Parts: sequence; structure tokens; C-alpha cells
Amino acid sequence: MKKIRVGIIGLGRIGSMHLENIANLRDYYEIVALADPLNANLSELAEKYSISFYTKDPQELINKEEVDAVLISSASNTHSEMIQNAAEAGKNIFCEKPIGESVEAIKKSLEIVKKNKVKLQVGFNRRFDHNFRAIHDSVKSGKIGVPQIVRISSRDPEPPAIEYVKVSGGLFNDMMIHDVDMARYLTQSEVVEVYATGDSLIDPRIREAGDIDTAVVTLRFENGAFGIIDNSRKAVYGYDQRAEVFGSEGKISIDNDRMSNFELESNDGGHLDVIPRPFTIRYSQAYIDEFKEFYNSIVNGQDIKATGFDGLKAAELTNAAAKSLQTGLPVKIS
Amino acid sequence: MKKIRVGIIGLGRIGSMHLENIANLRDYYEIVALADPLNANLSELAEKYSISFYTKDPQELINKEEVDAVLISSASNTHSEMIQNAAEAGKNIFCEKPIGESVEAIKKSLEIVKKNKVKLQVGFNRRFDHNFRAIHDSVKSGKIGVPQIVRISSRDPEPPAIEYVKVSGGLFNDMMIHDVDMARYLTQSEVVEVYATGDSLIDPRIREAGDIDTAVVTLRFENGAFGIIDNSRKAVYGYDQRAEVFGSEGKISIDNDRMSNFELESNDGGHLDVIPRPFTIRYSQAYIDEFKEFYNSIVNGQDIKATGFDGLKAAELTNAAAKSLQTGLPVKIS
Amino acid sequence: MKKIRVGIIGLGRIGSMHLENIANLRDYYEIVALADPLNANLSELAEKYSISFYTKDPQELINKEEVDAVLISSASNTHSEMIQNAAEAGKNIFCEKPIGESVEAIKKSLEIVKKNKVKLQVGFNRRFDHNFRAIHDSVKSGKIGVPQIVRISSRDPEPPAIEYVKVSGGLFNDMMIHDVDMARYLTQSEVVEVYATGDSLIDPRIREAGDIDTAVVTLRFENGAFGIIDNSRKAVYGYDQRAEVFGSEGKISIDNDRMSNFELESNDGGHLDVIPRPFTIRYSQAYIDEFKEFYNSIVNGQDIKATGFDGLKAAELTNAAAKSLQTGLPVKIS
Amino acid sequence: MKKIRVGIIGLGRIGSMHLENIANLRDYYEIVALADPLNANLSELAEKYSISFYTKDPQELINKEEVDAVLISSASNTHSEMIQNAAEAGKNIFCEKPIGESVEAIKKSLEIVKKNKVKLQVGFNRRFDHNFRAIHDSVKSGKIGVPQIVRISSRDPEPPAIEYVKVSGGLFNDMMIHDVDMARYLTQSEVVEVYATGDSLIDPRIREAGDIDTAVVTLRFENGAFGIIDNSRKAVYGYDQRAEVFGSEGKISIDNDRMSNFELESNDGGHLDVIPRPFTIRYSQAYIDEFKEFYNSIVNGQDIKATGFDGLKAAELTNAAAKSLQTGLPVKIS
Repeated sequence: MKKIRVGIIGLGRIGSMHLENIANLRDYYEIVALADPLNANLSELAEKYSISFYTKDPQELINKEEVDAVLISSASNTHSEMIQNAAEAGKNIFCEKPIGESVEAIKKSLEIVKKNKVKLQVGFNRRFDHNFRAIHDSVKSGKIGVPQIVRISSRDPEPPAIEYVKVSGGLFNDMMIHDVDMARYLTQSEVVEVYATGDSLIDPRIREAGDIDTAVVTLRFENGAFGIIDNSRKAVYGYDQRAEVFGSEGKISIDNDRMSNFELESNDGGHLDVIPRPFTIRYSQAYIDEFKEFYNSIVNGQDIKATGFDGLKAAELTNAAAKSLQTGLPVKIS
Repeated sequence: MKKIRVGIIGLGRIGSMHLENIANLRDYYEIVALADPLNANLSELAEKYSISFYTKDPQELINKEEVDAVLISSASNTHSEMIQNAAEAGKNIFCEKPIGESVEAIKKSLEIVKKNKVKLQVGFNRRFDHNFRAIHDSVKSGKIGVPQIVRISSRDPEPPAIEYVKVSGGLFNDMMIHDVDMARYLTQSEVVEVYATGDSLIDPRIREAGDIDTAVVTLRFENGAFGIIDNSRKAVYGYDQRAEVFGSEGKISIDNDRMSNFELESNDGGHLDVIPRPFTIRYSQAYIDEFKEFYNSIVNGQDIKATGFDGLKAAELTNAAAKSLQTGLPVKIS
Repeated sequence: MKKIRVGIIGLGRIGSMHLENIANLRDYYEIVALADPLNANLSELAEKYSISFYTKDPQELINKEEVDAVLISSASNTHSEMIQNAAEAGKNIFCEKPIGESVEAIKKSLEIVKKNKVKLQVGFNRRFDHNFRAIHDSVKSGKIGVPQIVRISSRDPEPPAIEYVKVSGGLFNDMMIHDVDMARYLTQSEVVEVYATGDSLIDPRIREAGDIDTAVVTLRFENGAFGIIDNSRKAVYGYDQRAEVFGSEGKISIDNDRMSNFELESNDGGHLDVIPRPFTIRYSQAYIDEFKEFYNSIVNGQDIKATGFDGLKAAELTNAAAKSLQTGLPVKIS
Repeated sequence: MKKIRVGIIGLGRIGSMHLENIANLRDYYEIVALADPLNANLSELAEKYSISFYTKDPQELINKEEVDAVLISSASNTHSEMIQNAAEAGKNIFCEKPIGESVEAIKKSLEIVKKNKVKLQVGFNRRFDHNFRAIHDSVKSGKIGVPQIVRISSRDPEPPAIEYVKVSGGLFNDMMIHDVDMARYLTQSEVVEVYATGDSLIDPRIREAGDIDTAVVTLRFENGAFGIIDNSRKAVYGYDQRAEVFGSEGKISIDNDRMSNFELESNDGGHLDVIPRPFTIRYSQAYIDEFKEFYNSIVNGQDIKATGFDGLKAAELTNAAAKSLQTGLPVKIS
């Protein structure tokens, strides 16, 4: 089996997690280069993982001949540039979401990707999660008939630092982007109308920053189905990630996994273990599996499971939600 | 313990169920009169339950001195008249929903009830259900903190006969009325805005009848919370009745009961028993308990748990939902 | 539909519960007589349920021509006599467990029942429970293949009064009798060997009374399967009633029902409602359904679902368990 | 943080899995040597994991100065020798179960380990599993009071090859050894009596090989508690690994994890995902965590969580079970 030689751009929290995961996929990848203009520990990382090349300059990494594929986990506002440069250099690309700063920027990137005939996979990790994948496969195989209602609850364990909120692009672009992608993924249909409501119920500083922390969004799909997404920045009980698709022949839903499945009975009732809080625990296996499937797409010709088009649609939908929230009216998607 | 002497008006399917339940509450009630202009088997029912008086004329029943309380389960379009007449006669009243043909009719009835100082309980059976009551009590006791998001899924196992659909008053008034009541009951807050979407996805005859069979409604509450209700006329897997309240300190949810709790494992996975289809099975105990609490309200001074005001608000909200569906815009509640 | 005219002997706690249940089965039964030498409130019960005849003398009830069937819920040490007399009088019989004071007494009763061609149903209520019935039906239909291991956990919420313990006949005869019956019911096979262990771990007064409060019994069945029963007199979390059958094609298990199915999430994990403590709540529907099936056996020729033979086998098995506990050795059943 | 330099003896299926896991624990271990007299791919493994030394001779590995700790995953009948030699060489030891061919051999090994003051951890992986650990911690913290009954169900998805059965040492030594260890681990008490039953119900060739495939064992503990273990070589629905501890203040149980937690509802009931079959999936994280804790025991002075004494007791108990099965009588443990 041929190994893909990969270069990683951006070694922050997410980038470092990917580095570890990819290093462990010994039969799939060889990491040949690291690039980060900011990370001062680059040489230590390179040594720990026996990587011979590292640089502060992403373009240097992109230009390296022995790099087959580039993983982009640098700051969000660099994604368009990185994708475009990597595509021009003929490299296959894995890019964290969002894949661009605006719908227009994304469209331009996708054209360049297309022109250069490279593969592009977006870091929509939930598409590779055992639970969400199970719903998706079940719906696709027709087990619940024609989808009619999809419900997604997606709630963070706690709000990000207020400094981050200010630069996050807002709850829709920062958080709900995964959920609108899930809505499309689970129903296999495009959204034609969005109605968004929301408010700041958790922390007044979030309101002052011009953002919301709680949202409920209603979707209408091309195939007639309805969708509901609810978001909160603070679920004290953990990282709440659930979904349900209801259809003409049944329904399928997923619940949260717990740290263990013990059930304790005492005289005040039953007790269950906690739901994990960090997304890195919740999606630990998905973060590995997305790279297994990226490999299969490049080497074995499997369809990309989270495409640039998916990244584009997600951006369009979160923009529409933001507009609906601002106007108080439903927004149609062309 | 003093027994309440009750007269039952309307011995159709629901009325007959109530008759059986009340007859079994031997320590609470004595059934002294039946009235139904249409039921040809009235004498047989009277004999079966050892009831000495029966009549085709509801007013005759209302006028009887030995009747302490009247149960109104006659046709919906008679409810206002029956309530008003029973109240004028000084009888305590249990009335099935809806308690009037219009918001105006209900307001008039409530004035007459108030003037005559009789008790009025509405047949919002879910308020007495073990599962919905558990959520309500938990929220009220503060266990989940301040409510922020309430979700209600309420789906019938199959659409009613198309003839019934035509005279039902529409999905909102016929079906979602229970859910808007639940939304108020579970959050203990009033709704200030309603946005409704819906369509006919199940049976074209429902569309032709000018009704919908699938609906998603977004609510905003006075206390800032958001609400989501989804309805379908056809859940092939059974009568789907679930709810969740999410708040600042946690969440509480209820799922469907099953016919039994067996778990069967075979080489293709786990298997669970079916969810019951008839509402009479799902709410069998609630239909009994609502009359125990009606008794306690009359004899022991307990607050009425499903008041005329609750009936009024439910009618206002389903009207607002219908208006929102028609206009495609959110509707504010004064 | 023909009604069965029933006379009830013994109006203690269980007898009164049956009285209420049977009175509510208006389409099945007419209660025509009550008998209890001890219950001072017999006339009040007769009035409440509109029963014209009551007596202190059970034989007088048995002799009444209009009695079709006799329900025996008198003191355990009267059961043999009552069964034999009722059978001689040609009455169909429903008798609480145990159906006799000894294996010999039971054998004699069964002969008299057989000779007089009357029906006899034993009060093994669990055979009519929705959960245990679901396992039984599933095993019988072959869904788990050939049974190989059956596990039963049966634990009371609290020990009975020590006075009762002294006259109870011991844990095996008083409590495990239901479980050995379940073991036979669920596997559809006879037990050929019993090994019992047990001790008093809960209350030293139970040990002083010569009894145990905790027991673990291993069974071997004719068809090769193994069985395990565990009993405790004190499960602080409620009346614990579970079972599992494992076979060549799968397994099926039942868990405890809870007072409601809410799931509360807070920052210390999940919380579930309590498991009910009183057996009258746990088996409330089974206590009704056993009389529906008794009716069907008499009127519609359905097989008796809890026969005199089942009562006999249960007695033999609890005797064998007692002997095994005493000797410390496995005991074979002839 | 200091890294432990480890040498691995035995690179069969289990050894190769450990190799991969330990290689991924980059902050804890450096693998410096491999030894296997049989594995022909040793050089490829060494290259894949960048290990500079490999040999066919385990003693050569043991003698290497730069080896701090030895992982023994060679054939079972070599364990005593390997442990003794590694201990004599002053190496810390991780050894797969069983840690010796006989109770006597184990006792001798433990003396040598003690004399040389090295650490010895046994590969009782379940002690490091999230579910079993949760029960253990809960019992230890007193949440269920005094343990009174422990139940363990442990069933393989399918029997091993008949050739393996013949040399496996029998079901008790090969399979139930993990369960008797769990019984001690969960109750924190020693077993004083064993009664074993069992038979071959699955495959006649297992009987012909002098072994059994189905077993039920009853335990009595020093602290008065009772234990039940049931084993089957063939659970068609997956690798069934459950346990429950019942005590004076409650009970705690664990169930099987599933491949995902979806719940699919259709008109024939609910459907759940399958239970995994391979032990490598079921215990994938435990196989990693046992080496994290081994590290902590060596470097940070944490108590060994699966000691040589635990390995000794497990061997004594499986021997007692075998004797009980042979004699048909309970066997006391001195």
C-alpha cells in the first residue's frame, strides 16, 4: 500500500491533534513537513515525530516536491490563500472549516481546485463519526423512507473566551456551520429556506460583543422535509450532540455517548455517567477516521465524503441564518 | 370521604372511556346521570354501570339537583353552550378540549364560570401523565435552572379519516393544541411569538381538504426561552410523544414508553418492543388521574391543574400558528 | 359474552386488591359472594361493590349454586382445604400461591381437581406480566434458539416484618417460589438439579428466626440449560425484578420499569426516576390480566397459563433448594 | 518526563497489538528491542516502528542494558521462564495472563520478582476498561454499601478453533480466569468457596476434546458476599461483557457498548446497533490504558493495578472451579 506524504500547515491545538493522529496512521501516511509561522516548538514536534523538515513559511512547505498532500489547520482567515496556493502547486488538500472567509472567496478556491484537478476534503469531522454516520447510512439505505423532519441539537459545554467570541464570526459561522452541514448530510437534500431566531441568554458579554449564545433555526428542504437546529453555548452537562431523522417509514436518532455505561441504582433513583465535555474526546475516533477516508479518496478513488461544495453550502446557509436573525424574516436560498 | 355526584354529557368514544374510568373511582365519584342526544345504547350503559338516570337532553342532566359536577365530552361545537349552561346551574365542570369554538366564545364562557364561582378543568390529559408531569415538576423545582429551550415532538400513528380532517379545525387546533399547552406547562412561561411552517407530505387528500399533516413551529417565551414543536399525522412506529426542556443547569427529557422493556440481542443487533399506537393506551393512567385531581380540586381545595385560562391560551396560540402559516411570517402574541 | 359469577374467599390485602380488579372487569365477571372469617368490614365491602351475599363461612360460599368460580386468597394454610372443597362442589378455582402446605397436600388437591373436571389457575402473577410474558413468548417462538442460560434476579425492597418471617415458610417457599416458576416458564423445561447457597446478610433477626435473606441458586434443566436465581430481601432502590434467557441464537432480557422515563442531565451525570417499591404497583396490570386469562380459559377454552402442576413443581423445587442449603450439596430432582 | 525503554518478547497477534499501542504512547515509552523466535517478519516490524534491535532470542533482549522493562506476550508456556529471567536481570515486567503454567510455578516466579525488587503487572486488561473501572471505583467509594451479590456474564462471540481448545487449558483457565479476577476486583474480597457446573452445549468437538463451552460458577467471598459467573463460548450477538454488584445501599451494573448508539424505530419496534465481536475492539482503550498505568507505577510510584498476586489468585480459583466441576461438589479455598 502506497503511503501519502503529507505536510501540515498550522500546528495549533487542532493541528497538533491531527499531527498525532496522522503519525499513528503508519500504514497510510508519512509526515514529511511541518509549517507554522507562530509555533515556537516546531523543532520539538519535528523531533518527536521524526519529521525531517519544518519551516515558518507555509509556501515553502507547499512548494516541496515530496509533499503529496497538504493539511491546512492554520488560522481561519488564511484558508482561502492556502487552498489556492496548494491547489496551484498540484497538492491534494485537507482543510479545516470554514474553507474561506466569504462565499465569494470559497467559490474562487473551488474553481482553482477544480482547474488543478486536486482533491479537497473539508474538516467536517462529524461526517466521520460512528453515530452520525450510522444515521446517514440508515437514511440513505431507505430504512426510514422519505425524510420529513430532521432535528439537530448541538450544544457546547461552555462558551469560548469572550476574546474568541469577538473574532469568531458569530455563532452561526463558528458553531452552527457543523449543524447545517449535518442537516444536508443526513437528509441528502438541499435547504431552500432558513428562519433563524436567537438571543444571548447566557452571558451579557456575548450580547455586548454583538453575538448570540442560543439559537433555534428552522429549515425547509428541496425535497419537502423540515429541519430544526438548536444551539446553545453552554450545556452544563457536557458536549451535547444529538440528531434525529423522521421519515415516512420510521425514525432514527442518536444520543450522546457517556464516559462509561454504568447504571447505578440507589434509593433516589438511577444514576448514569457524565457526557464528555471536550470535542476532542467526543470526536476522537472521527478525527482519525476522516484521514483514513481522505487516504481512500486519494489512493483508492473513493468519493470525497466532505467536499468543497459542502463547505460552500454550509457558508451560504450560515449567512442566510445570520440575515434571517437580523431581519426577523425567513430567507430563501437561491 | 365525600363522593362527587357526576353527570356525563356525551357518550361517544371519549365519553365512554371516561365513564368506565370514573365508575372505577368508587371512592371519589358516583355517576348519577348520562346524557347524549345520539347514543342509542344509553340505556345499556346506564344498566351496566348501575346509573339510574339517563336522557337525550343534556340540559335535563344539567338541571338535576343531585348532579354536583358535569363532564362534557359531547361534540366540540357544543362545548361553549354546555359550559355556560352548567356554570349557570352552579355545577363544577370538566370539559374536553377545545373548550370553545373561538377565542371570543371561550372568553365569554370563562366569565360565566367566574361569575358563578364553579370550578372548570380542561381535558388536557398530558398534564396528568407520569412522564410529562415528571418534567414539569423537575423544571418547577429548579433542577435544570432557567429554561432556555423546550422541544416537543408529537406525532400521531396515523392520520384520522379524511372526513374527520375536513371538520377538525385543522392540525393546529385539533392536534397541536395539546403541544402548545405542554410548552406553557413545561416552561411555566407565556408565549410571545409564534412562527409556523408546515405542509402536507403524507396524503394529498389532506392538502385538498385545505389542511397540513406535518408542521414545525418555533415559539418565543416571555422569559426569553425558545420553543420548538414538531407534528406529524403519521409516525408508522407508534404514537410518538416526547419532550425536553433545556436550561441553565441541565436538561430533562422524556421518551416514549414501550409495550414492554425487553431487549433482544441477535446477530443483527438489538431489538426493542413497539411503542403503543392508541392514545387511550399511551395516556390510560393520565385519563384516570385527571379525575382524581379534579376531585381533589373540588373537595380538597387543590389548584385546578388545567384551567379555563389554559384552554384560552391554547386557542390563542393555535390561532396564531394558523395565521403564521398563512402569512409566512412570525406572529406576535399580545 | 357470558359473565362468570365469582365468589371470593379471603379479603385481606391481596383479596381486596383482587376484589377491586375483578369488580372493574364488568364484561367478564359478576362478583356474587364474599367470605372471610376474620374481616370485620365485609358488609362495607359488599355494599361498596354492590354484592348481595357475604358470609364468615367459606363453605357457605362454596356451596352456593350461583357461584361459578371461587377465588381463594385466604391464609396459605387453608389453601388445600379450600381447593379440595371447591373442586368437590364443581367450582372452577383461582388460588393464590402456594397452593398447598406440602407437596403431598398439593398432589392430593390436584387429584380431586382432576376428578371433578374443574379448572384450577394458580396466582403466579408474573406469568401475566407484560415484561415476563414478552420473554416467554420470544423464547417460545424460537427467536433466541435453544435456551442455554437463564438468569433471574428477584429482590424485595425491604424485608417483611420479623413476625411474618417466622411463619413465612422461609425465603425459598415464600419468595423464590415465584422465581423457580419463572425459570420453568421462561425455559419451557423442567429442572433436574438444584444447588442452593444463602445466608443472612441483612438483619440478624432473620438469622435468629432460622431463615436467610440472601440466596443464590443454580439450576440444571432437562434440556441441558443452566439457571441462576439470586434473591435478596432488601434492595434499597426498589422491587428488582429482572430476567434474561441466553440461547443459541441470541438473548432476551427485561429490566425494571421506572415510575417515569425521564432522563435528567446535570453536571454530575444522568439521573433516572426510581423503580417502584410495592409489588402491587409493579404487577398492577398483571393482577388484572391474570383474571382476563382465567376467564378465557373457562369460557373460551384457552389453556390455563398457570396450572396446578406448575404449583406442584414450584413447591418441589423450593423444597429441593431448602435441602441443598441444609446439606451444602446439589440435590437431584426425580 | 522520563521515557521507559521497553523490549517486547513475542510478536504474535497480541504482541503486535501491544507494539502498535506502545509505539503510539510516545511520551511514555521508547521501544528499543523486539524478540520472537518464530515471527519471520521481525525485521519489517522493527523498520516500521524504527526499532534498532531485534532478535530471535528472548534472553538476548532481556540481557540488554538499555532495556528498562520487558513486555512478555510470548506463548503461555514460556511465561514463568521469561518472568524469572527478566526479574533476575532486574527488569520491570508486564506479562500477559496466565503468568505461569501452574500455581507452583507462579509462586516461584513471584518470589524471584520479590527478591529482585522489580515491578510485575499482569495483562488483566479488564481492570483498565472504562466500564469495569467505573464499577470498581463506585464500589470502592462505598456508593452501593457492602457488596452482597456480584454477577458477571462473560461470553465469547464464537468458540476458538478446536485445535486451540485442545491446548487451551480448558474454559476455566483460558476464559473464566478474567472473570474470577473481575469478581475479586469488583468486590475487593477474596473467594473462599467455588461451586462450578458446566457442559458442552455448543459443539460436540469441544466435549470430545474434554472441555466444556458453557459454565455457571457460584462463589462465596470472605466478606459474606455471593458471586455468580456465567460463561459461554458462543454468543451470536457479540462479545458479551457485563457485570453487576449489588450491595446494602444500591447496585451498579455495566452493559455492553454498541458500535454506535443509534435507535431506529419502525413499525416492528426499536432497533439498536450491534455489539462488537472482537475483543480488540471491545477493549481497545483498555489495552492502551494498562500501559499508561504501568508507566505510572514504575515512574510515579502508583500501586500496580493488576499484580502478580492477582495472577496467582486467579489461577487458584480456576483450578478450584475445575476440581468442582470434576467432583460435582463445592470446593473450599484455603
